[in-house]
Amino acid sequence: MTEIDLIVHGASQLLTMDPRLAAVGDDDPEAARIGVIPDGALAIHGTDILDVGSSEKILDSYRAQKTIDARGCVVSPGLVDPHTHTVFAGSRHLEFGMRMRGESYLDILAAGGGIHSTVSSTRDASLDDLVSLALPRLARALRFGVTTMEIKSGYGLALDAEIKILTAVRRLDGEQPIRLVPTFLGAHVVPREFVDRRDEYVDLVIREMIPQIAGEKLAVACDVFLDEGAFTADEARAILAAASNHGMAPKIHAGQFTDQGGPGLLAELGGLSADHLEVVSDEDVEAMARGGIVANLLPGAAFSLRDSFPDGRRFADAGVPVALATDNNPGSSRSENLPLMASMGVTRMGLDCAEAWQGITSNAASAIGMSDRVGSLVPGKKADLLLLSIPDFRAFLYHFGVNHTMAVVMDGKVIMKGTPV
Amino acid sequence: MTEIDLIVHGASQLLTMDPRLAAVGDDDPEAARIGVIPDGALAIHGTDILDVGSSEKILDSYRAQKTIDARGCVVSPGLVDPHTHTVFAGSRHLEFGMRMRGESYLDILAAGGGIHSTVSSTRDASLDDLVSLALPRLARALRFGVTTMEIKSGYGLALDAEIKILTAVRRLDGEQPIRLVPTFLGAHVVPREFVDRRDEYVDLVIREMIPQIAGEKLAVACDVFLDEGAFTADEARAILAAASNHGMAPKIHAGQFTDQGGPGLLAELGGLSADHLEVVSDEDVEAMARGGIVANLLPGAAFSLRDSFPDGRRFADAGVPVALATDNNPGSSRSENLPLMASMGVTRMGLDCAEAWQGITSNAASAIGMSDRVGSLVPGKKADLLLLSIPDFRAFLYHFGVNHTMAVVMDGKVIMKGTPV
Repeated sequence: MTEIDLIVHGASQLLTMDPRLAAVGDDDPEAARIGVIPDGALAIHGTDILDVGSSEKILDSYRAQKTIDARGCVVSPGLVDPHTHTVFAGSRHLEFGMRMRGESYLDILAAGGGIHSTVSSTRDASLDDLVSLALPRLARALRFGVTTMEIKSGYGLALDAEIKILTAVRRLDGEQPIRLVPTFLGAHVVPREFVDRRDEYVDLVIREMIPQIAGEKLAVACDVFLDEGAFTADEARAILAAASNHGMAPKIHAGQFTDQGGPGLLAELGGLSADHLEVVSDEDVEAMARGGIVANLLPGAAFSLRDSFPDGRRFADAGVPVALATDNNPGSSRSENLPLMASMGVTRMGLDCAEAWQGITSNAASAIGMSDRVGSLVPGKKADLLLLSIPDFRAFLYHFGVNHTMAVVMDGKVIMKGTPV
Repeated sequence: MTEIDLIVHGASQLLTMDPRLAAVGDDDPEAARIGVIPDGALAIHGTDILDVGSSEKILDSYRAQKTIDARGCVVSPGLVDPHTHTVFAGSRHLEFGMRMRGESYLDILAAGGGIHSTVSSTRDASLDDLVSLALPRLARALRFGVTTMEIKSGYGLALDAEIKILTAVRRLDGEQPIRLVPTFLGAHVVPREFVDRRDEYVDLVIREMIPQIAGEKLAVACDVFLDEGAFTADEARAILAAASNHGMAPKIHAGQFTDQGGPGLLAELGGLSADHLEVVSDEDVEAMARGGIVANLLPGAAFSLRDSFPDGRRFADAGVPVALATDNNPGSSRSENLPLMASMGVTRMGLDCAEAWQGITSNAASAIGMSDRVGSLVPGKKADLLLLSIPDFRAFLYHFGVNHTMAVVMDGKVIMKGTPV
């Protein structure tokens, strides 16, 4: 008997996310795809998973200081939200109200709405303000079972303000439990003061922001919004190439409104994920499949903007890994409910339940370069896991819009017990 | 100074739902439509609302044993969920998984799915089982701020089983806080054992079930599912006329899949609401407007079934009151999250934020014949209200998929305080 710190046993289904670990019959190939072990258990030592298997095997092989009886629960990896803009100031509910009354984008701009209003509020906010505004958002995400989250800058659009946002992310990483993965999005939109000299802004991003942010290790990835009204393909290529040279992984917002060839460009540069993808060519889908680029789909933005949902089935059928994110942001998707995005993934985007689970765990981890540490329950990874009050992994998507999280374990420690809502 | 039991004051916005009580400027006609009082207050005595107005006016006019300081919160009526099937046994997540994999309805029936599986489980369950299965569902709805809920029978399809479900609703009404409004839906689907003699089943509903259920006062309304595969217009007319003769208000499930003229029929019979309405003729919309029939729309069913959402804008533009419900049921909409249905109302169904609020409060109360007691915060109604942690009524729809309920007051008593999720 090996002495270890923690055993979690008796899970009605343990979702390892690794098909090689599956222990289900031939009658449930969907469960096999996400590595379901019935009556499953985990052996945990320190912060990491040491072993997984049936409860019988794990309880026979290890003796633990502490055990958690997960009977009646599905145990899953902690959820990974791979695309958010969680650090911002200001609320845009009045603009939302105008949109829902059918008012035009020009009317909204005239009323002081749009992304520039968030840029203005975020520039005006102090670092402390940004941290305290983000804390309740992160607490809400944690209650929904999110244990790893990407957060982008991009509401600063000036060196000091971008650094302030990324510094807030670093502070938040230390002040609350969720693992935060910072992405630099200086090329979110051309700021108003540069609107007639956009080349200068692109230069500023490349020559000042990227070197300094990389130097201070404030971001692990760099994202560009490639679309009409944002940045061009040439600008995106120059910015992402510079970021790559400074060790930041390229990512791209592409095809939210128009097809500008972003996914192909990203595949060429060897990036992590192309995000949004509501409008995308077959060639770009193939390039993503060949290049191992994750399709990071954002149903909440389509939902809130009254747009069509991205077609998850198309990417899955082409062999592109599909991730699902909240896109939590004040303009187009104000929500921390990642499980709801997974429900939208199945009901509105053509995925099946196993694919939706991959979208918020293993594929989401790949989308942000964290698949060596999180997103699946296999030996060597962080012991980040959820106890869910559901009878089957499919019930998580089926019983939608509510919170099934009974407990959250991170780094092998129980950090939250709750009543599901 | 009048001595009363409770004052709730300082609400950043008090949503009375009565436009005559609005105290907002001309620049916010949307707020005026739902009777917003800024810095609003309520005077409550016993279980009822005695007075509403500005905090200054109420605090100057009344002295209360207890006060609730609602600063920083929007105060709204308790929510009304006007169409649910909350009492049932069995879960259909496996059937959901099959649908999300694109399997056909025939495959699902062959695998034992469909409504008959719920009928079978519900018939097999004891009264105690049905009560204990429903309690957590009601607790979840309450945490989302639902204080009044309609619950239909319709998974019994036999006299004793229908009575068992309605008796469970009556018991649940006494065992938890939500006010429950029972509807008899014996004509949900023709039960398997009557499939070759459907006239006999219709006769059974009319001659045995309706008289006995009306006699025991187990239901206040009677609903019929009028559609292909369910009941015909002639059958619906006969059943609803009989129900009406026994004092039960007519309601109808109409136009979920095909147009069978249900709303016009209901208008003719003087009913409360026509529900679903994904397919409906212009003539029927006009008949609903003339007859004061509420359009009770069910976005959760469209969401889960991968169907088109019903067009809320069309009804609102025609002068038909629009209500929104969860349709919480094991087959086509498994959710207790009524606020999410309101967000779908605006983002997917063309309503604006004020209309969505009416849909889950005042119009929802009309849809179930409860508008004399609940659904608005005006003198004489029940003191059922919510404290919501949002800056503006629009933020309730904008910040979606989460729970903003800080506290629930029913009958003038605080019955729940919570951390919003």
